[in-house]
Amino acid sequence: MNVLDHGYVKEVEHWGSDERIIESARMSTDGGFHGWETDYRLLSFLWQHAHHTPFEMAGVTVEVYAPIFVTREWERHRTQSYNELSGRYVTLPNEYYIPSIERLMAGKQANKNKQGSEEGFTHAEADKLGNHIYWATHDARKHYEQLLESGLARELARLVVPVNQYTRFRASANLRNWLGFLGLRLDQAAQWEMREYAREVAAIIQQRFPRTFDLALKESSV
Amino acid sequence: MNVLDHGYVKEVEHWGSDERIIESARMSTDGGFHGWETDYRLLSFLWQHAHHTPFEMAGVTVEVYAPIFVTREWERHRTQSYNELSGRYVTLPNEYYIPSIERLMAGKQANKNKQGSEEGFTHAEADKLGNHIYWATHDARKHYEQLLESGLARELARLVVPVNQYTRFRASANLRNWLGFLGLRLDQAAQWEMREYAREVAAIIQQRFPRTFDLALKESSV
Amino acid sequence: MNVLDHGYVKEVEHWGSDERIIESARMSTDGGFHGWETDYRLLSFLWQHAHHTPFEMAGVTVEVYAPIFVTREWERHRTQSYNELSGRYVTLPNEYYIPSIERLMAGKQANKNKQGSEEGFTHAEADKLGNHIYWATHDARKHYEQLLESGLARELARLVVPVNQYTRFRASANLRNWLGFLGLRLDQAAQWEMREYAREVAAIIQQRFPRTFDLALKESSV
Amino acid sequence: MNVLDHGYVKEVEHWGSDERIIESARMSTDGGFHGWETDYRLLSFLWQHAHHTPFEMAGVTVEVYAPIFVTREWERHRTQSYNELSGRYVTLPNEYYIPSIERLMAGKQANKNKQGSEEGFTHAEADKLGNHIYWATHDARKHYEQLLESGLARELARLVVPVNQYTRFRASANLRNWLGFLGLRLDQAAQWEMREYAREVAAIIQQRFPRTFDLALKESSV
Repeated sequence: MNVLDHGYVKEVEHWGSDERIIESARMSTDGGFHGWETDYRLLSFLWQHAHHTPFEMAGVTVEVYAPIFVTREWERHRTQSYNELSGRYVTLPNEYYIPSIERLMAGKQANKNKQGSEEGFTHAEADKLGNHIYWATHDARKHYEQLLESGLARELARLVVPVNQYTRFRASANLRNWLGFLGLRLDQAAQWEMREYAREVAAIIQQRFPRTFDLALKESSV
Repeated sequence: MNVLDHGYVKEVEHWGSDERIIESARMSTDGGFHGWETDYRLLSFLWQHAHHTPFEMAGVTVEVYAPIFVTREWERHRTQSYNELSGRYVTLPNEYYIPSIERLMAGKQANKNKQGSEEGFTHAEADKLGNHIYWATHDARKHYEQLLESGLARELARLVVPVNQYTRFRASANLRNWLGFLGLRLDQAAQWEMREYAREVAAIIQQRFPRTFDLALKESSV
Repeated sequence: MNVLDHGYVKEVEHWGSDERIIESARMSTDGGFHGWETDYRLLSFLWQHAHHTPFEMAGVTVEVYAPIFVTREWERHRTQSYNELSGRYVTLPNEYYIPSIERLMAGKQANKNKQGSEEGFTHAEADKLGNHIYWATHDARKHYEQLLESGLARELARLVVPVNQYTRFRASANLRNWLGFLGLRLDQAAQWEMREYAREVAAIIQQRFPRTFDLALKESSV
Repeated sequence: MNVLDHGYVKEVEHWGSDERIIESARMSTDGGFHGWETDYRLLSFLWQHAHHTPFEMAGVTVEVYAPIFVTREWERHRTQSYNELSGRYVTLPNEYYIPSIERLMAGKQANKNKQGSEEGFTHAEADKLGNHIYWATHDARKHYEQLLESGLARELARLVVPVNQYTRFRASANLRNWLGFLGLRLDQAAQWEMREYAREVAAIIQQRFPRTFDLALKESSV
């Protein structure tokens, strides 16, 4: 449930079930849920042949605490519903993502993969980079607070806030759309921090929809 | 729950609550649900000022049995998820909508409102019209069954099936989208048969989300 | 452009181009369109790796004349925009889909594929089935016209209209969503009549977006 | 076309027209475009009575250069298609939004309106606040460049980048959805910087769809 240094993903609620998906698929043939001995094959067939609508008859709402740069990628998924903390209404929390030494040691600009990072920094180098990020963030926070103290509106004071700022939001989607989200965000092409959040979402789905998880996500989320 | 001569709308499940909507709206200010003494005003404000996203954090799945011509209008709502009986897989049920005498007495082509109907037929006239529809439907069903008996594929035999044929489907949407559906389908401009179904959906929403119902639908569904 | 016995698909307009898709994809790297020698590989990569958003920067609007049972399947695609002829406003056109002898000869209920049809009727059998559908349709039309003449509202008279009734609509979508539509509707699992319409949509896309067509649809639409 | 200190909104392309909207609406009555003497009333009726689908038969694609905090609000509109510059692929441009003296003089935290700002700073105070934002931004940029020079991956170096960082994206939507966007983003409740961008979008729509603009936006965009 905890993610990165200060973040989390927690389930607010879920609806539907693996059985409900079968029931809904059986609308087309006027049947219902028969039992998993026979119906696991149907669930598998639906997934393999892109009959996705029955997977829209279940869903999950989660609450997330994540840095802005992760939230930016997350909220590009237009099939989810969002409600988020507003820096116009409240002072943003004094929490910022500082990567761990381990993450920074694996955080060298990759050569081949222009959008990726790879191993390559020593412990000492990583430590120095971590300190640099920490102090840059610390200064930015100080500026933000000073601007607020000067009476500047929150909507303007926030201009100096860096994208490792933590923010909080709720996201709600049906299962079909969560599976689409996870297909992209558990992928190695996604940034490591994003994947950490996706893994927590996957864990919730595994718990609530274990058979669907087996079909759709088992491999990618290991 | 029963609608028209053979139809129904029944709740499969719902998620969220009036309280959940408040909680979600409070994400922006880092608050939560405080109690309806203060929060009913917030709920009202959200609705009046078109802050619709918190209403996406709740929803309802229903099962519907309705004539094809009603289903056609319903399924034009693209924000709902559907699973429906398929005339390619199974023989369609032997149930067809025949309007009641009362409906037919009020079923004269309106002059002003080109898409509407109005009072004007006597009981005897309405009775005759009802019989006409009944026998036309009866003949169509006979043709459908004969074509099936000849070995014609279900996907082709159904060509002769009229749009008062009953079909069954599930529809799932979040509350924001149900409210949009109801705004249009409870309206006097909607066909009476469509409104009958919309009223049953409204009754489910009134039961599960009484405060949202009061704000958004009380007037239109009376 | 002509489809089935009375139907058609015609382009109303299109926007974007294969080049526009490249340009839009290059927003992420601050580049533009370089020329097809290098950019065809990028287009192919985007498609193979499910980077679908650049394909949303182009689109097509079509006008379609099709039987109701085809329209019902079409309009289940919720990412398209629709405007359709209304049987509440106007008398429906006196045109109904009667399958050809060739289609009927291949229209026997399939045994294995419960939703499909297969070869098996002789020319004489098919002829008889075609006549049966023709006369059933003819009678339904007569009933519809008689009910209208009696003064019954169009919205009620239409109850007896069979689903081989032709209707007219416009459909507009971006290219990503047309490709999704075609992936499902050109498939052998789709009903033959639906595939005939999908093939015409594919032809429009081939003409306007030839490189995207090659990548995404060449095999399936042959 | 220019917005704020470095930003812009420019039209990439548009499709459809006011006439096309009428034509599409007339699908329901089997008519077409008759001429604006009679059809302006229809256009007005469609808009007043929330018959929004004909407005989906036209659209606009724009390219936008805007600070991240504006982009974050913009991209919450889930009915638009986006392609954006990626800080994982490229070094972000050295351009940051610094509010003008005039904006800062009107940038005092509002008391009543918790999310807003209001007049209240002197020229000298505003000048000081502007300098503060400038130097905070300048330092953040220096940190970003130093981290990049150290070999840290772009996806991590960007953590220190503030939300007044300019980014570039394309946004495409149909007219119905642009009108929804503008209804919210031209509103006084929207942040001034967001409204500046919305006004440029409105100007494009006024040029391409003058009659729709008159109906839907004239008041709000003055």
